[in-house]
Amino acid sequence: MSECIFCKIVNKEIPATIVHEDDDVLVFMDIGPIIKGHALVISKKHYDPVTETPDEILAKLHITAKRIAQAQMNGFGADGVNIMQNNGTASGQEVPHIHVHVIPRFNDDGHHWNWNAKKYDGFDEMKKLADKLRKEL
Amino acid sequence: MSECIFCKIVNKEIPATIVHEDDDVLVFMDIGPIIKGHALVISKKHYDPVTETPDEILAKLHITAKRIAQAQMNGFGADGVNIMQNNGTASGQEVPHIHVHVIPRFNDDGHHWNWNAKKYDGFDEMKKLADKLRKEL
Repeated sequence: MSECIFCKIVNKEIPATIVHEDDDVLVFMDIGPIIKGHALVISKKHYDPVTETPDEILAKLHITAKRIAQAQMNGFGADGVNIMQNNGTASGQEVPHIHVHVIPRFNDDGHHWNWNAKKYDGFDEMKKLADKLRKEL
Repeated sequence: MSECIFCKIVNKEIPATIVHEDDDVLVFMDIGPIIKGHALVISKKHYDPVTETPDEILAKLHITAKRIAQAQMNGFGADGVNIMQNNGTASGQEVPHIHVHVIPRFNDDGHHWNWNAKKYDGFDEMKKLADKLRKEL
């Protein structure tokens, strides 16, 4: 995956502001932050999407994201944190290499997610979708 | 935490459309879906926020979310999936019991996150924030 921009960051072929690095994961600053201080936790090996990512790497990504969330609270005084991992262009994912967004949030930061909750056409519609999921597990 | 709505769902004191249950996690349908089929993965024990959640439970939540994402792709034909975990009212979190949103996405679903990326006032501003994070790790 030599054309992958995140693989190039892992390989130090292009620069990034790195916060943490170990054998499995790399953390660096998102240059287009939702809120300043927004960091990305990525796997050093190329995986995409989440469903192709080994369980142990997925666990490592999120345990690292938790540490970054704590650092944002302690270091920035963040009031909250969004942890978001998008899969597929339909979801808004831009770089097809697994990455976890860790976004510090402040009570007065002015950002609002577009949380436009829908309603089901009755209980049966929801129940049928749950049945479909259960069959796939 | 007997007043916690998610603890009440775990204890079967209030109903939910359950998709999966094991010793550590419960998966049920969000009754206010961003996109129909939206599921929540929660810990059975009460933890909040992510920084107070044990690593092994956090790993379990996300490995389960991955399975649900695959089920949404297979069962609904989802083109993508958002996996989101919010911490604190500043982040948009509504129920203070750790939960992972697993949201199926379709190319034509019409939902757009408010991804209003900011710009840093130069490289130094970003570097200083990275320095603060690194000191807290």
